[in-house]
Amino acid sequence: MFESAEIGHAIDKETYDAEVPALREALLEAQFELKQQSRFPVIVLINGIEGAGKGETVKLLNEWMDPRLIEVRTFDQQTDEELARPPAWRYWRALPSKGRMGVFFGNWYSQMLQGRVHGQFKDAVLDQAINGAERLEKMLCDEGALIFKFWFHLSKKQMKARLKSLKDDPLHSWKISPLDWQQSQTYDRFVRFGERVLRRTSRDYAPWHIIEGVDPNYRSLAVGKILLEGLQNALKAKTLGRQTNIAPLGESIDGRSLLGSLDMTLRLDKNDYQEQLIVEQARLAGLLRDKRMRRHALVAVFEGNDAAGKGGAIRRVAAALDPRQYRIVPIAAPTEEERAQPYLWRFWRHIPARGKFTVFDRSWYGRVLVERIEGFCSQADWMRAYGEINDFEEQLHDAGVVVVKFWLSIDEQTQLERFQEREQIPFKRFKITEEDWRNRDKWDAYSEAVGDMVDRTSTEVAPWTLVEANDKRWARVKVLRTINEALEAAFKKDKK
Amino acid sequence: MFESAEIGHAIDKETYDAEVPALREALLEAQFELKQQSRFPVIVLINGIEGAGKGETVKLLNEWMDPRLIEVRTFDQQTDEELARPPAWRYWRALPSKGRMGVFFGNWYSQMLQGRVHGQFKDAVLDQAINGAERLEKMLCDEGALIFKFWFHLSKKQMKARLKSLKDDPLHSWKISPLDWQQSQTYDRFVRFGERVLRRTSRDYAPWHIIEGVDPNYRSLAVGKILLEGLQNALKAKTLGRQTNIAPLGESIDGRSLLGSLDMTLRLDKNDYQEQLIVEQARLAGLLRDKRMRRHALVAVFEGNDAAGKGGAIRRVAAALDPRQYRIVPIAAPTEEERAQPYLWRFWRHIPARGKFTVFDRSWYGRVLVERIEGFCSQADWMRAYGEINDFEEQLHDAGVVVVKFWLSIDEQTQLERFQEREQIPFKRFKITEEDWRNRDKWDAYSEAVGDMVDRTSTEVAPWTLVEANDKRWARVKVLRTINEALEAAFKKDKK
Repeated sequence: MFESAEIGHAIDKETYDAEVPALREALLEAQFELKQQSRFPVIVLINGIEGAGKGETVKLLNEWMDPRLIEVRTFDQQTDEELARPPAWRYWRALPSKGRMGVFFGNWYSQMLQGRVHGQFKDAVLDQAINGAERLEKMLCDEGALIFKFWFHLSKKQMKARLKSLKDDPLHSWKISPLDWQQSQTYDRFVRFGERVLRRTSRDYAPWHIIEGVDPNYRSLAVGKILLEGLQNALKAKTLGRQTNIAPLGESIDGRSLLGSLDMTLRLDKNDYQEQLIVEQARLAGLLRDKRMRRHALVAVFEGNDAAGKGGAIRRVAAALDPRQYRIVPIAAPTEEERAQPYLWRFWRHIPARGKFTVFDRSWYGRVLVERIEGFCSQADWMRAYGEINDFEEQLHDAGVVVVKFWLSIDEQTQLERFQEREQIPFKRFKITEEDWRNRDKWDAYSEAVGDMVDRTSTEVAPWTLVEANDKRWARVKVLRTINEALEAAFKKDKK
Repeated sequence: MFESAEIGHAIDKETYDAEVPALREALLEAQFELKQQSRFPVIVLINGIEGAGKGETVKLLNEWMDPRLIEVRTFDQQTDEELARPPAWRYWRALPSKGRMGVFFGNWYSQMLQGRVHGQFKDAVLDQAINGAERLEKMLCDEGALIFKFWFHLSKKQMKARLKSLKDDPLHSWKISPLDWQQSQTYDRFVRFGERVLRRTSRDYAPWHIIEGVDPNYRSLAVGKILLEGLQNALKAKTLGRQTNIAPLGESIDGRSLLGSLDMTLRLDKNDYQEQLIVEQARLAGLLRDKRMRRHALVAVFEGNDAAGKGGAIRRVAAALDPRQYRIVPIAAPTEEERAQPYLWRFWRHIPARGKFTVFDRSWYGRVLVERIEGFCSQADWMRAYGEINDFEEQLHDAGVVVVKFWLSIDEQTQLERFQEREQIPFKRFKITEEDWRNRDKWDAYSEAVGDMVDRTSTEVAPWTLVEANDKRWARVKVLRTINEALEAAFKKDKK
C-alpha cells in the first residue's frame, strides 16, 4: 500500500516554480466558487509518518489559498470541556460549515493509531474505532461533505534521516509527538496498523491519498493538485444537482511510478536459471507436502502485460507439483452463469480447500483493469472494488489462505518483439489477436490502472509482487521464489 | 426495538382468507417478472426467536410462490468442504443468481448471535462480525441484490408457551436448536445481543423487518406483503434503470399499532398527582445532586402530538432543579448557521457535560417526523437517519450520558378540545396557529411515522417511553418517574 510512496518522487525547482502560479490561481478560484455556492463543506484529514511534511504542507496551503476560508484544527490533548463529553464532540464542534474548508490534524485516525501502537487495546477494539470512523465519514458524505484523506509517508530510512535533520534545526526541535518515533519499533507498528486502517477506510466516497513526503516540491504539488481536481469535480457535480462525491485517485505528477522504477534489465543466464529453477521447484514441492500446509491453502494470482509470459511462469510452477494438489483457473469472459452473480462469485467458487493450491491465470483484478479501461463497469463500480477486494483477500488470509499476487511487467519494445515473433511462429499464432494490438494502444491507461491497483490493494495480508519480466528466466525464478518465501513466512508465523 | 412486535398482532381467519388469493397471485406475478427480467437476485434472511414461526412461514412462501425459483438454504453444521475454506464460502456458493430468490436460514446473523450468546466471544468480536455482515450486504446491494431481513419475534412469555406446545406435538418435537431456549437467560441474552445486531445492521438499503410471530395469519400476511411491495418497487426501479433499492418499511396490516395499544384512559386525581409529583421532583433533585451523577450526564428528549403537553411536562421537570444544572433547548426551524451543517450538528453542540442535564423540546427526531412528512428531505435521507441516530445515541450512551426519550400521545378528540380551548383563552392564543390545524390533517401520516420511529430507534441504550397524555397529570408524573428510574438504573450499573 505504501510501495508507490517509497520510490523517491521528486519535482525539480524549475518545474515547480512554473506550475505553482497556475495551481494557486485555480485553487483560489475553486475556493471562491465553493464559498459562493455554499453547498457543501470540505474536510481535509492529515495523517501519516512523523517528519513527512504534514505541517509544512498545511502551512503552504494556507499561503496558497484564502486562509479566511480555511480552519486548521489540531486535536491534541482533550480540554476539560471535551473530556466531559463523548469523544466525537470535539470533532463535531470543529466541523467547517458549507462553503468552508476544515483541515484536521490529529484527528480520529491519529487517536486510534496512537492507542493501538501504544498497546492500549487490540485489533478488535481498533476495528471498532475504524468502523466508527467509517460511519461518521459515510454520514458526513451523505450530508454532502467532500472529504480528502492524506497520508504523508516516508520509508523508515527516510524518516530517520528526517528526524535527525529536524533535531539539529532549532526552528523545529520544539515539536513534540505523542509517539516516540526514535524507536524503530514505533515506525513498524505505526505502518502496520496504519495499513490496516487505510485498507478498511479507503472507500469510494472518501479514499486515502498516500503522499511521499521526502521532496517538498513533490508533496506540495501532489496535494494541491488532488485538492484542486476533487474540488472542481464536486463543484461541477453539485451544480448539476448530483450528490455523488467521487474523489479523484490522483495521477503521478512527476512521471515516476512503481512500474517505472523497476529495473527491467534484470536477467539470468541459462545455467543459473536451470540451477535455481530446480532448487525452487523442489522447495515448492516440499513445502506443499509439508504437514504445516494442512493449516493453509495457497492462492497465486497472475496478472501482467499481454505476452509478459504468464503462461510460461505458471507452467514452471505447476511442473514441480502433483496434479492432484493444484488447479489452474483461467479467467476469460464470464460465463452466463457467472454474469448472473456478483463479480467476486466466480472466484469464490474456486477458492481452494486447506492443503490445496489454486492458480488464477488473470483474476478478480479484471474489475479494476480491463473493466475499468474498457468501460465495462461504471467508475463507481471499480472505485468501490478496491475496498471489496481488500475485504475479500482479508477473509482468505484470516482463514489461513496464503495469497500471492504477481504483476508480470515487460516494456513496450519487448512486447512488440514478442507479438511479432508470435505472428511468425505457426504454433504460437493462436496466441495473438487483433485485440492484443488494440490493447497495446492503451498502454498508458493500463499503466495508470496498474499503479492504482497496486497502491490500493497491495496489503500486508496480500501483497503484490512486481516481476521484471523482460527476461523470462528471471521472471520464472522470481515467481517461484516469492511463492516459497510466502509459504515459509506463513508457516513460521504459525509456530508463534 | 421489539416493542411493536409484542402487542398481539393478529388477523382473523375471514380477513386472511379474503386477502390471501390476491396476494398469492401478485407474488407469483412479481416472481415471474423477476425471472423474465433476470436483472437482480433476491436474498431473504430469516432470523429471530425460536418458535416464532420462521420455518412455517418459509414453508408457506414456498406454497404460495413458484418453488422452482426459490432456493431455501439452511446453514447448520459446516460440512468438511466448508470447514476447509473461509467461513463466507458457504454463503457465496449458495447465492441465488439473478432472477431467482434465495431464502437463508441459519445465516451469518445466526452464527454471530449463537457465538455471542454462548459467550464464545465478547462485544468487540461481535462488532467485527457485524461489520463483516454490513460489508457483505453493502457489496451485494451495490451489485444489484435485493435483500430482505426478517426477524421473527416473540415476547418471553409467548415463547415459553410456544415451546411447550411444540414439545407436546410429536410432529415438531424432533426440532433441535443449537441454543437451549428453555433457559430464561438464553432468551434475555439472545434478545439483547439481537438488538445490538439489528440496530447496527438496519441500513437504508437493507433494513430489518421485525415480525410478531404469535399469530400465523398475521405473520404470513405481513411477510408476504413486505416481500411483494419490495419486489414490485425493485422491479419498477430496475425497469427505469435506477439502482437504488430502498426496501419498504412495512405498514401495519392489522390496524394494530404501538400507539394504538396505549391505554388512553389512564389518569391521576388531583391529590394523588400533587403527592406523587412532589415525591418524584424531590427524587430527581436528589439524583442530580448525587455524587454518582459526576460520571453521567442526562439528556431528555420530548416529542409528541401538538398540544400533548410537552411544555407543561418540561416545566414540572425543571421546577425541581437548580437552573445552573439544566438547560432547555427548544428546537424550531434551524438557523442559517445550523442549515450549513449536517443535521445532527445542532444537537451535538448542546450535548451536556458530565453532571449536567439537557432537555430537548423536540429533537433530532424531526428528521424522521416533520421532515419526512413534509418532504423536507428525500426518502433516502430519512431512511438512513434511523441508523445515524442510533449511532449518535450509542455514542452518548458509551460516554455515560443517560438518554430518555418521550413521545407524549393524545387522541384526536383531546387534541381538538385543546386547540379550541387555546383559541378561546387570550394568553394561550399564541400557541395555536394555522399550521397546527394543517398538521392535524396529517394525523395518520404522523402516526405511521411515529410507529416507524419507535420501532427503529427504541434501543437498549436509548429506549422510547410512550406517555399516555390525555391526562396531563398522569403524563407529568410518568415522565418524571421514568427519568428517575433511568438515572437509578445507570447508577446501579456503575456499581457492578
